[in-house]
Amino acid sequence: MWDNKVTELLSIEYPIIQAPMAGGVTTPELVASVSNAGGLGMVGAGYMEPDQLRSQIKAIKKLTDRPFGVNLFIPSNFQISKLDFELAFNSLQPFRDELNIKEEIPVLPDSKEDHVKFPQLLNVIIREKVPVCSFTFGIPSEDDISMLKSEGVILIGTATSVNEAVMNENAGMDIVVGQGSEAGGHRGTFSENGENNLIGTLSLIPQLTERISIPVVAAGGIMNGKGVIASLCLGAKGVQMGTAFLTSKESGAHKVYKEAVIQASDSDTVLTRAFSGKWARGIKNQFIKEIEESQTPIPDYPVQNKLTSQIRKVSASRNESRFMSLWSGQSPGLAKEKTVKELIRDIVSQAEEIKASL
Amino acid sequence: MWDNKVTELLSIEYPIIQAPMAGGVTTPELVASVSNAGGLGMVGAGYMEPDQLRSQIKAIKKLTDRPFGVNLFIPSNFQISKLDFELAFNSLQPFRDELNIKEEIPVLPDSKEDHVKFPQLLNVIIREKVPVCSFTFGIPSEDDISMLKSEGVILIGTATSVNEAVMNENAGMDIVVGQGSEAGGHRGTFSENGENNLIGTLSLIPQLTERISIPVVAAGGIMNGKGVIASLCLGAKGVQMGTAFLTSKESGAHKVYKEAVIQASDSDTVLTRAFSGKWARGIKNQFIKEIEESQTPIPDYPVQNKLTSQIRKVSASRNESRFMSLWSGQSPGLAKEKTVKELIRDIVSQAEEIKASL
Repeated sequence: MWDNKVTELLSIEYPIIQAPMAGGVTTPELVASVSNAGGLGMVGAGYMEPDQLRSQIKAIKKLTDRPFGVNLFIPSNFQISKLDFELAFNSLQPFRDELNIKEEIPVLPDSKEDHVKFPQLLNVIIREKVPVCSFTFGIPSEDDISMLKSEGVILIGTATSVNEAVMNENAGMDIVVGQGSEAGGHRGTFSENGENNLIGTLSLIPQLTERISIPVVAAGGIMNGKGVIASLCLGAKGVQMGTAFLTSKESGAHKVYKEAVIQASDSDTVLTRAFSGKWARGIKNQFIKEIEESQTPIPDYPVQNKLTSQIRKVSASRNESRFMSLWSGQSPGLAKEKTVKELIRDIVSQAEEIKASL
Repeated sequence: MWDNKVTELLSIEYPIIQAPMAGGVTTPELVASVSNAGGLGMVGAGYMEPDQLRSQIKAIKKLTDRPFGVNLFIPSNFQISKLDFELAFNSLQPFRDELNIKEEIPVLPDSKEDHVKFPQLLNVIIREKVPVCSFTFGIPSEDDISMLKSEGVILIGTATSVNEAVMNENAGMDIVVGQGSEAGGHRGTFSENGENNLIGTLSLIPQLTERISIPVVAAGGIMNGKGVIASLCLGAKGVQMGTAFLTSKESGAHKVYKEAVIQASDSDTVLTRAFSGKWARGIKNQFIKEIEESQTPIPDYPVQNKLTSQIRKVSASRNESRFMSLWSGQSPGLAKEKTVKELIRDIVSQAEEIKASL
């Protein structure tokens, strides 16, 4: 049941990929534990500086000699005037006031910044011989793809529609993650607005496998052995699971964040641009509600992400989930606080039990 | 693989329920063919008059001696002033002009009408000894439930969240259909706004089976054997499939409607209140776009449904899909024009092949 094109390409035991959750969740302990348990650990490097990524990779290598991967965000283009930037900064003042944050208006972000950093991050991946690299929010350039492939890096793209999957296949990706609407965190949508393409996993996967030849990995709403074997039945060759690993003991997610996820129910998540400027799914809290109610325009990613950074950091330091981004898929109530080893063992044995009972 | 609580309760061979699509799709031929092929055919009686339902049932009985079911809409409450009704009627004038429809403003709907009709429809079901009855948009009264149960009718509720599934179980339903966000046609949501509770099937089903003891039937995005066996893996005891039967040869759906579905792709459906006043998923066409762009307030169901009725009817008579309601789930591209017998045979054999290959 477990040996297929994905386990072969990635040299892993079970086709279970830990979703690359950016923002401190994917500690070296989490990534290494997943790989040591037979899955593929992934570093969510979307917000990282090259030096941070390098030291993270070195830390992982001390904890495992198995394959792991790194996820990068394809740099976004954005434009914002100084005035709109100031307005957006000022509109967040009530949150800073409530948290007693004295923050000067940050420097207007430079849209070239992420474009300059991207090749530096790729360079780290190649130098450190990271075996797998995945991408969110787009597809790298032809040159970058051939360079990575010539170094033997296995490439994983992200698609939220048939159209995006075909684009990934044509660009030369080895594997495509099909991200269903259930998925927590950022929508990987890049061919149009991330509020569109909200196709459920059960609908998306069979349509992807019908249209592309490279292996498809299912993501969105998969929490346990039921979701894993269901995904294989739909034609996926593996799964990518975020929320399930988020609440694991090795995850770097904040304690109150883990608690909020475990206590949430199916109807508690929403799609919002409030935290980062890109559409993402998380548990609806005071921050999302107030931003929605205020109806102030939200700048694009990464501007809004920068503007809310201090607010998120200070609320986390005070154990207050009200103003933190609580990314979660649509099955938060199925999340458990286990070790990664227990989690993967339970997934595998539940899937095998279901297979036997069919 | 096929014998379980659902096939037992419904006395059917395969736990495959044909979704009760209202509005002329569920012809006696469709319903009877599904039942004859080992599934459960369902009459979408949401818009029917008692007499229509009675003759439909009699026609089905001539075509099959196997069990079938009827779906009813729980009557909605609505309020609309004469002025708002006129405004809503007038806002549709551009569509009537384009289709050259001369229509007088209809009589202001009476909110009691559906409440008066509901017990009459139940009466037909009991008199005609229909073995199965399902409900959308709510749960019948305690009295109606005990009356139906005392007559031996098997009752199926619809839930779009854990909360609604628990309400159905507590009310005494025998089975609950978990309707994921992928599903075409009307959202069954009744505990809140139908734009909420957009939980993907793959996420919804394992959460329902974790919380309720009565059997769960999965609905939303299931088109073939892959979806059926995946649903069983998720813990469902059966499936309810709409779009897949919609394009079957026996379906009463209009030719251009079937064609539109077969030619659509994953990103082509949207949720809209434009046609009926309740949220429903369909292929985005000119009518939906123009109503959205006009931003005129849309009256609640069934008022808007009545107001758009003539427009839909005339466009259908002219083979124009521009102004018809083209309800579809998120996998329209997987729909095929087959006979029901072929469709069910293919579903069963694909599911069995997948089982053997796991």
